[in-house]
Amino acid sequence: MTDPQAVADAIGATDQSATLLGMTVTSVGPGRATVTMTVRPDMNNGHGVCHGGVLFTLADQAMSYACNSYNQRTMAVGADINFVRPGQVGATLTATAIEVTQQGRSGVYDATIVDQDGELIAVFRGRVRRVGGEIVEN
Amino acid sequence: MTDPQAVADAIGATDQSATLLGMTVTSVGPGRATVTMTVRPDMNNGHGVCHGGVLFTLADQAMSYACNSYNQRTMAVGADINFVRPGQVGATLTATAIEVTQQGRSGVYDATIVDQDGELIAVFRGRVRRVGGEIVEN
Amino acid sequence: MTDPQAVADAIGATDQSATLLGMTVTSVGPGRATVTMTVRPDMNNGHGVCHGGVLFTLADQAMSYACNSYNQRTMAVGADINFVRPGQVGATLTATAIEVTQQGRSGVYDATIVDQDGELIAVFRGRVRRVGGEIVEN
Amino acid sequence: MTDPQAVADAIGATDQSATLLGMTVTSVGPGRATVTMTVRPDMNNGHGVCHGGVLFTLADQAMSYACNSYNQRTMAVGADINFVRPGQVGATLTATAIEVTQQGRSGVYDATIVDQDGELIAVFRGRVRRVGGEIVEN
Repeated sequence: MTDPQAVADAIGATDQSATLLGMTVTSVGPGRATVTMTVRPDMNNGHGVCHGGVLFTLADQAMSYACNSYNQRTMAVGADINFVRPGQVGATLTATAIEVTQQGRSGVYDATIVDQDGELIAVFRGRVRRVGGEIVEN
Repeated sequence: MTDPQAVADAIGATDQSATLLGMTVTSVGPGRATVTMTVRPDMNNGHGVCHGGVLFTLADQAMSYACNSYNQRTMAVGADINFVRPGQVGATLTATAIEVTQQGRSGVYDATIVDQDGELIAVFRGRVRRVGGEIVEN
Repeated sequence: MTDPQAVADAIGATDQSATLLGMTVTSVGPGRATVTMTVRPDMNNGHGVCHGGVLFTLADQAMSYACNSYNQRTMAVGADINFVRPGQVGATLTATAIEVTQQGRSGVYDATIVDQDGELIAVFRGRVRRVGGEIVEN
Repeated sequence: MTDPQAVADAIGATDQSATLLGMTVTSVGPGRATVTMTVRPDMNNGHGVCHGGVLFTLADQAMSYACNSYNQRTMAVGADINFVRPGQVGATLTATAIEVTQQGRSGVYDATIVDQDGELIAVFRGRVRRVGGEIVEN
């Protein structure tokens, strides 16, 4: 099996959205990944809290690295998120994604976002599909 | 009733995420809003297409302006999205959100994202809740 | 193209759940179907209203007949539902499902449930996948 | 705190849907419940497998007993389900629901359905809201 970290490095090499939003993959393994991000003022919506879409992006990012960890190119086909608490500027958020099931080409992953105090910010459940091909050529 | 455009302007005045992602509210009315965004290279994920989270953010943005159009402060509590086609760099995406139902403080909104050719990119269904207070003081 | 009604008749011939819950397909066309059901006392949950699962079943039934209308065997892979108002005993509920998108083997369908007064009871969005094979052999 | 089993018994006393579908609450505790059901031929849809709506109902039932276990009357406001494997006639299915979060009146619960061999049949994530009042009067 290709090392999940090698796959993450290959994806990360061309992942410009990670730079835009300051998202860092801090851990990756078979079917799992952890991504962190600090909420910046420019992520705030018109209500003065982190845009829900940015929270979704963080969770989706963790899922993406988790579901591609097997070195089979995999894309999100959809996801559901529940927002539990707002993300505040300066908060360091951690999204942890784990595989719930992988049946043939279809998979389901859960991602949970907590802040630096361990408070739950959002829960995310995504749906993925393997589209063929590898990330790292063997 | 407060003019929906006045509400949108008030939200937009402090909406920094709109600047970060180049999102423009092009139309707003009672329970509806349209937001556009052009996909930039720095929105791409490691697969070379627009991050699904950025697509979600665009749809969520349209919902936010739509559900706040009644001048009652309203927050997203969750949402589901299905990705239909990838968003390509340079594409001009338009998200249109409409109210499906508003029952007491709870509402459901649909947002659809299409590209400049009218091709469907994603469908989004969000859940909102009025949290009390107004956007524009009367 | 095989007549959608012929497909619906073929599915209906072995559909025992329709009998169990008194669900009748009243209309079917390409990518759409309408199913009705009257809420019976034995559908009530412990709160004295129609079980949300029975409402889901009605919406899912409409989607199933809609997505199989092209005579390509199609199964639900998932769905999301929002409950808007409770279903009361004696109410005649109508679920109308329409195709939102069909891309390759994957599709998204919306189903809306209203009662005899046109009041919105629930909104459902389902995800389907064509699994190969036909319903009616040609 | 009121005993969760006493609450379950009170709900069960008027729960007619449990009889209709042969659903039995086998375990209940604070924020959790387990419900079992054997798939009957009259639960089959026109594809010859257990109707997805019946699977949803089983998961929703587990959530309902779990979220009402605190003796605060709680209703489902929505849910998402992913179908992993079909339910076959004769299979004994077990749905286990656990609380993910309860924030004020709003909660999120996960329910997982497995068959008698422990094979995953479906994963469900539901959204609930406390509507005021108790189940068992104290």
